[in-house]
Amino acid sequence: MPDISQRGVHMPPSPIRKLVPYAEAAKKRGVKVYHLNIGQPDIETPKPVLDAVRHSEFKVLEYSHSAGNESYRRKLVTYYERFNIQVNHQQIIVTTGGSEAILFAFMACLDAGDEVIVPEPFYANYNGFAVEAGITIRTIGSSIESGFALPAMEAFEKAITPRTKAILICNPNNPTGYLYSKEEMEVLKQLCLQHNLYLFSDEAYREFCYTGRHFSAMNLEGLDDHVILMDTISKRYSACGGRIGALVSKNQQVLDAVMKFAQARLSPPSFAQIAGEAAVDLPADYFDGIKAEYLARRDVLVAGLNNIPGVFCPNPGGAFYAMAKLPIDDADVFCQWLLESFAYEQQTVMMAPGTGFYATPGLGKQEVRLAYVLNREDIAKAIICLEKALEVYPGRVATAIADTIVTHG
Amino acid sequence: MPDISQRGVHMPPSPIRKLVPYAEAAKKRGVKVYHLNIGQPDIETPKPVLDAVRHSEFKVLEYSHSAGNESYRRKLVTYYERFNIQVNHQQIIVTTGGSEAILFAFMACLDAGDEVIVPEPFYANYNGFAVEAGITIRTIGSSIESGFALPAMEAFEKAITPRTKAILICNPNNPTGYLYSKEEMEVLKQLCLQHNLYLFSDEAYREFCYTGRHFSAMNLEGLDDHVILMDTISKRYSACGGRIGALVSKNQQVLDAVMKFAQARLSPPSFAQIAGEAAVDLPADYFDGIKAEYLARRDVLVAGLNNIPGVFCPNPGGAFYAMAKLPIDDADVFCQWLLESFAYEQQTVMMAPGTGFYATPGLGKQEVRLAYVLNREDIAKAIICLEKALEVYPGRVATAIADTIVTHG
Repeated sequence: MPDISQRGVHMPPSPIRKLVPYAEAAKKRGVKVYHLNIGQPDIETPKPVLDAVRHSEFKVLEYSHSAGNESYRRKLVTYYERFNIQVNHQQIIVTTGGSEAILFAFMACLDAGDEVIVPEPFYANYNGFAVEAGITIRTIGSSIESGFALPAMEAFEKAITPRTKAILICNPNNPTGYLYSKEEMEVLKQLCLQHNLYLFSDEAYREFCYTGRHFSAMNLEGLDDHVILMDTISKRYSACGGRIGALVSKNQQVLDAVMKFAQARLSPPSFAQIAGEAAVDLPADYFDGIKAEYLARRDVLVAGLNNIPGVFCPNPGGAFYAMAKLPIDDADVFCQWLLESFAYEQQTVMMAPGTGFYATPGLGKQEVRLAYVLNREDIAKAIICLEKALEVYPGRVATAIADTIVTHG
Repeated sequence: MPDISQRGVHMPPSPIRKLVPYAEAAKKRGVKVYHLNIGQPDIETPKPVLDAVRHSEFKVLEYSHSAGNESYRRKLVTYYERFNIQVNHQQIIVTTGGSEAILFAFMACLDAGDEVIVPEPFYANYNGFAVEAGITIRTIGSSIESGFALPAMEAFEKAITPRTKAILICNPNNPTGYLYSKEEMEVLKQLCLQHNLYLFSDEAYREFCYTGRHFSAMNLEGLDDHVILMDTISKRYSACGGRIGALVSKNQQVLDAVMKFAQARLSPPSFAQIAGEAAVDLPADYFDGIKAEYLARRDVLVAGLNNIPGVFCPNPGGAFYAMAKLPIDDADVFCQWLLESFAYEQQTVMMAPGTGFYATPGLGKQEVRLAYVLNREDIAKAIICLEKALEVYPGRVATAIADTIVTHG
């Protein structure tokens, strides 16, 4: 039997999805599982967005342009204008989800062995795409105690090597929910200019900001040739299954290279491009209600978590994730135990172990990521499950938050 | 400005799509372009397939399982049973088009520097995925004179090195239309067993066989751990824009590794999975009419081409492509010239230059690939354009087919 590849061996399983078999088994036993593990919103996809597909009238489900339908790209130009991001449709390449935008950026800008600096913790699947592209993710730590603020400029500079070619951020951040300030973005700009680095900016959660305004990397003046925007409609319009994203840049060489990768896979999905195009025409107040809902959920989640003895959760400024530190020995063991060996009133909670969001061994062992994608009532019930679980979990440790800022009793 | 990657530099542009800007310019000048360059069928997508999407009633466009909806995978089991391919739904991973199945197979089975042997000419985008995976495609020549039959076993053995890990075929073949016989498949089996190689089998055109029955690599006895089937609904149901394919194998290690790549990109497109599931329920005679139509088109195309002085086109046994040898200096120049500088009665023809389907420099310079995806009338008109063009093309050469079997005057 031929061996699988070393990259197949080293490819990390998704920390968000690897526990799925245990959740499925729990459900088969009749246990209700609250899914806080994955950023799959329960918010309904806007009806006009689904209707655009359902009322479409074409007769042949054709390939689109490899860069996406021109009509959709032109519509996206108007979408970006609302954020004062000035691009033309030829600077937008529609991708198969934000996932493909990340992969294309890695492939087109970095060679095997090149390094990209990412503040840690970070979106776990960056690891997977790094393995696919053969590149190295170098992390610099941001801490739960500081609410995961951008590390100091010196920390970046210490991490830069001759192989460093890019800095990658997610803003607002998945998994931490941190919203980078204009000042922090300016620091990144200085770094990129001084060290001739790309700035990869994953702005999947642009609309979901609660503590301030979003400042896009595309609005950093003088950085046009460095910035690669990775985007997606998945979270914005609760359209995760559409698999439509975009790579946006003003660097023509990058666009030309990315187009070759785009051509190889022929085209992004046609149905969901129709959905994406319709989404740009949603009424201007569409996000108001959505944001208010997420904000209310966040408040329930964060307050509830901080009320559990020994638990600490900084208040996230955007996206719909929070990282919490728990009084436990091992988040992977704990999250699996919650599904395999625990239930409170026939209910349990599924979370993503923090370790999956760190590259540095040992970090995140007491942390979990929670996605507040359920309604407030379910979040409250999930928190009760978590509290009850922590009372009986065999691997509970007393010293968990000894070195953490404790803001509650 | 940061440099793009070397792989971005070396990534080949699609020979099928790189001439698109010239076609667009021709159309703006009012020239009708017959698109024989791309395998985009004009056949209508079956109405029940589109209706399944249009009548879908979900409220949230959710991620699916990373391997694809279980209901769809179970349905695919029944599809494969019709071809006596016995697999269970856990041996099927739904991919974003056949493209992703190819990329996943390369990534999971081969490391950077590993080699895969491919009979030449071959589907051009294998090159792109090879660049992405950092692997090397080693080719062994099949010749237009032999109708592109499988090269002899000795040719494969000469190409095998310590880095060789797989053989890749497309059956029936794109770009040649060649349909591999059971005997040829048995030769591949012997090679894979003797040299411990994977057999990657791209069977996108399984239903489109005109000169014999299709023999799937999945039906090679004793080769279960070696065979990776790459599949797609694109051509089968004229559903190219859906971007739904599948990777199928009985090798559990490969499946486990591929699942990690599948998890990293979250899920295949949801809308088109609904379409794919409905397609399996099409009436048993659905392909009869489609096949008859393609067969008639093939006959118009091949006869028409062979009637042009100096042109040779072997008769393809399957798929909907033909490779033809033309009395020209350079297929890339000629195909561009057809769009830029030629029109006959305000019409011209777009073809894919043969060079893009060869990795060996210099090969394919007098060849073009034609996809018979237009109706017979349009194919006939396209052939007239081609004939007229060859009469006036400045780069016409007299000696083009001197070394070719000439079957006509």
